[in-house]
Amino acid sequence: MPENLLLNINNPEDLRLLDETQLPQVAQELRNFIIDVVSVKEGHLGASLGVIELTIALHYVFNTPEDLLVWDVGHQAYGHKILTGRREIFHTNRQLHGISGFPKRSESIYDAFGVGHSSTSISAALGMAIASNLKGEHSKQHIAVIGDASIASGMAFEGLNHAGVTDANLLVILNDNAIGIDPSVGALKKYLTAVKNGKNPRQNNMIKSLNFDYSGPIDGHDIFALIKELKRLQKIKGPKFLHVITTKGKGLKQAEEDQVKYHAPGKFDANTGEIHTKVEENLPPKYQDVFGLTLLDLARKNEKIIGITPAMPSGSSLKFMMEALPDRAFDVGIAEQHAVTLSAGMATQGMIVYCNIYSTFLQRAYDQVIHDVALQNLPVIFCLDRAGLVGEDGATHHGVFDLAYLRCIPNMIIFSPLNEIDLQNILYTAQLGLKNPIAIRYPRGRGMITDWESVNFGHYEKIAIGSSSCLKKGTEIAVLSNGPIAKNVTLALTKIANPDEIAHYNFAFVKPLDEKELHAIFKKFKTIITIEDGAITGGFGTAILEFSALHHYTSEVKILGIPDEFIEQGTVEELQQCCNINVNTLELIFLNYLK
Amino acid sequence: MPENLLLNINNPEDLRLLDETQLPQVAQELRNFIIDVVSVKEGHLGASLGVIELTIALHYVFNTPEDLLVWDVGHQAYGHKILTGRREIFHTNRQLHGISGFPKRSESIYDAFGVGHSSTSISAALGMAIASNLKGEHSKQHIAVIGDASIASGMAFEGLNHAGVTDANLLVILNDNAIGIDPSVGALKKYLTAVKNGKNPRQNNMIKSLNFDYSGPIDGHDIFALIKELKRLQKIKGPKFLHVITTKGKGLKQAEEDQVKYHAPGKFDANTGEIHTKVEENLPPKYQDVFGLTLLDLARKNEKIIGITPAMPSGSSLKFMMEALPDRAFDVGIAEQHAVTLSAGMATQGMIVYCNIYSTFLQRAYDQVIHDVALQNLPVIFCLDRAGLVGEDGATHHGVFDLAYLRCIPNMIIFSPLNEIDLQNILYTAQLGLKNPIAIRYPRGRGMITDWESVNFGHYEKIAIGSSSCLKKGTEIAVLSNGPIAKNVTLALTKIANPDEIAHYNFAFVKPLDEKELHAIFKKFKTIITIEDGAITGGFGTAILEFSALHHYTSEVKILGIPDEFIEQGTVEELQQCCNINVNTLELIFLNYLK
Repeated sequence: MPENLLLNINNPEDLRLLDETQLPQVAQELRNFIIDVVSVKEGHLGASLGVIELTIALHYVFNTPEDLLVWDVGHQAYGHKILTGRREIFHTNRQLHGISGFPKRSESIYDAFGVGHSSTSISAALGMAIASNLKGEHSKQHIAVIGDASIASGMAFEGLNHAGVTDANLLVILNDNAIGIDPSVGALKKYLTAVKNGKNPRQNNMIKSLNFDYSGPIDGHDIFALIKELKRLQKIKGPKFLHVITTKGKGLKQAEEDQVKYHAPGKFDANTGEIHTKVEENLPPKYQDVFGLTLLDLARKNEKIIGITPAMPSGSSLKFMMEALPDRAFDVGIAEQHAVTLSAGMATQGMIVYCNIYSTFLQRAYDQVIHDVALQNLPVIFCLDRAGLVGEDGATHHGVFDLAYLRCIPNMIIFSPLNEIDLQNILYTAQLGLKNPIAIRYPRGRGMITDWESVNFGHYEKIAIGSSSCLKKGTEIAVLSNGPIAKNVTLALTKIANPDEIAHYNFAFVKPLDEKELHAIFKKFKTIITIEDGAITGGFGTAILEFSALHHYTSEVKILGIPDEFIEQGTVEELQQCCNINVNTLELIFLNYLK
Repeated sequence: MPENLLLNINNPEDLRLLDETQLPQVAQELRNFIIDVVSVKEGHLGASLGVIELTIALHYVFNTPEDLLVWDVGHQAYGHKILTGRREIFHTNRQLHGISGFPKRSESIYDAFGVGHSSTSISAALGMAIASNLKGEHSKQHIAVIGDASIASGMAFEGLNHAGVTDANLLVILNDNAIGIDPSVGALKKYLTAVKNGKNPRQNNMIKSLNFDYSGPIDGHDIFALIKELKRLQKIKGPKFLHVITTKGKGLKQAEEDQVKYHAPGKFDANTGEIHTKVEENLPPKYQDVFGLTLLDLARKNEKIIGITPAMPSGSSLKFMMEALPDRAFDVGIAEQHAVTLSAGMATQGMIVYCNIYSTFLQRAYDQVIHDVALQNLPVIFCLDRAGLVGEDGATHHGVFDLAYLRCIPNMIIFSPLNEIDLQNILYTAQLGLKNPIAIRYPRGRGMITDWESVNFGHYEKIAIGSSSCLKKGTEIAVLSNGPIAKNVTLALTKIANPDEIAHYNFAFVKPLDEKELHAIFKKFKTIITIEDGAITGGFGTAILEFSALHHYTSEVKILGIPDEFIEQGTVEELQQCCNINVNTLELIFLNYLK
């Protein structure tokens, strides 16, 4: 058995000491290392397996970290992390106080730019390249590795459009595997596929039209071809574009064959590739499935209903409607801006549009929500998936700002369902002739009601806009919670010996508030505690403060939620503890107020 | 003299009764009508003059309003407004209670989609087209008219990328005049110019690569050619793209020759085209010029300084730096997302980047501010021009949400200068090794200090981050203002007989707040009034409420600012009155509290 090469690579300099002929062995070891760790620790698998050869070739040819390497999105950067000094801590990937699942500047000098959301790499690397030119560092290279799903997003086009008229030493590498998390879509994807298949060999291609030095497509698993081409490009000044064809999940048969499932497969057998399916008896459903199946049920009965997702059919579970009613459910690719204005356009023609976007990604379409939807008061239904703390994806992905950034928009309704049934009922309510846009925010993961399907399907109830409910009566302190975090309050209250003094209200609507109930609450209680799975600054609790100030109430208001800092990765439970909104901390807070 | 045709056209049906040969006369009359009105009433001139023939041809050929016509941005829609029933009220353009300067759904059935911000038209029209197909309206046409500056924005690319894989009856008309407000930039512009000049006649062009039926380029001032081509396209199903070449300002010599100045020239002589230059003796400077000239001064002394604008070199006055230091000042086109992440990339390399974006347009780059700048705590300096009420541009353009949507972002510093000197000093301070990103928001238009250049140039003072200042002492009531709206407070106080009871503080920093001063204020005053040129919900006043709640203060806090509704067009003074933040209303509010 040959010496293990990977164990001796502690940074790219070690890699560069090897002979080129040894690199296939490094690739095999790196692939096995990733499979071994991810099979046990979980994480994103397919993307990193697909760029093993490219990762090695880049660090072998270029002088990282002097040359600056930006990975778009970053799911594919596990190999990069392992080769740049993080092999021995790679098992802490995505854990609390462990390494991030994405490149991150504070983690390593080799992570030139923090990523997570897609399509930022070209702009970032171009900025670095222009800066290098200004500093007189004319031989420095700046590399953006971007997938074919990400390059179809508008921001990437903006970057290419600018780069093409500069003399910046920018190398854009298109990692073309025809898939993001779900298969890529759109006209550009069709074009790239034609190029790949040799059907579009014309010299004057799209990328050349944007003034780039284009080369490719080349086989991204042929490490020698990659090295040869990268060495050639290294000597060329100005904006360059290399089209590389890869296979997502390369090297693990099942991952190659079911690329969607093996994007982030959970635990699996490192040898056979078989996914360890958890025993899932009587688990409550994922909010995502509640959304997807309920929307499908509603859409079957109401032909005006449309579903839209920007590139998350699986993640959002819009896939159910896409499969059953393909004419009325659309994956528009990583194009949140377009998704929102497309929804607005449809709404002008009387369609009832459910636009499902992860909370953190709606940040990408903030202007479109204001300018195209709310200003025209079009009743688009925003389904904000993965709102609140999302867990292991960490700081780039928590959906904690939405309450604050949506609350200031006139005409918006903002609702966080208490549970799965509540989500079903608001989805039902939203198609009964709503006059305003609404944002329905619900968390990643499972709810709390195991028999939700038998309970509610076909028995939806209309929710009164701006209503609230009392979950528990009390005498001294009122706890106002927004959304499923109510569960933590309920559990904390069960742990308190004498909870009669504490009332608990469910304020699902952050806007409009249930003012009638609030007047009653402020008149009755001297202490009010608000709790939300979102940023404290400007969020639900703040809305209560604004109400209180407007009406000259003097009760003390204590706001619980996400503090004014970026929260790292960890389990949701761990992160709730960091933010003092977990069950045990809530118990202590309540006890303290009862003293 | 022939009969005036325009006066008999009250809607497009009247237009369609005319013989094609009469249309050049209509074009001439429409052009003259616009020039006559805009010369006196002001407004956007050049864009509408450039599409006179296209406007007539579209309404002549297509069955508007059944066929749906979406104008991108909308500066060019004056002819459209005049032909669709608004000729007699066109003189109220951009006035309070008058018609909007942009297409607006609530104003006319012919305005299929409200616009103002760029690059939304393709997505909106595609949404309409897909809806029509679902409704079985297969012969309906959906037209997006978009300029070459707007189509280079990422959102437009997202729309094209989706449209190309649909069978939607979408006609995208590229109004290619090589200019937005300032001349267009970028690789796509270069490509289009080559196409225009016949240097890129290849069949397989970029647009065809995206699966569109491409035709053109054709002369956009040849009304017969336009009609012929539109009639041909009318019969073709699916996504179509017509490339039309026009001249901005067509028909008014000066407007053709100085297209930047005649974009919105103010008052001018309708016959000679000469602009009425106002007598401008001893007027205070525009904040824009204070920004542009101060940045240039700082940049001359600090070679790390970079300036960036997305397509607003004239409007922002970054043009001064672009002219003097072209290597370090960049117009990146209508690409706010790219502008912000490009800035972040430069900041990683030690550059000090002043990224100037209108407040309303930063909404387009909200995710990039959070994810690429603040999360990595890169000290990018956002210069938010036209913050607060902007006046005649109206609801689409007011920069009133920024305080709310920025305040929830960790690491951000938010500052509104009191006046021109304060703006100079914060621009100076920002390049002295700031550790965080900062947003500096200042309004459209003139400041208040006539001799600002002699006062401060070269004598900048460093501002302590998170400081505040007392503008006037008082005994009973504390007024806390943010930014130049302080002037209204000062003027209101001068009108009060005995103002000794009212103290006035300048809280330029919304984040971090001057907590030390706030503690003193809350301990001293039972009544606190906050005032800001921004949305009440979630803004500066709300920050004061959050402080008060956190520290258990009981003083009454009254928040003044923009109410929770979209504010239409009017002069800034008129709109301030609508929002109760004008001088006279403030006086009344203060008097009421003094009772």
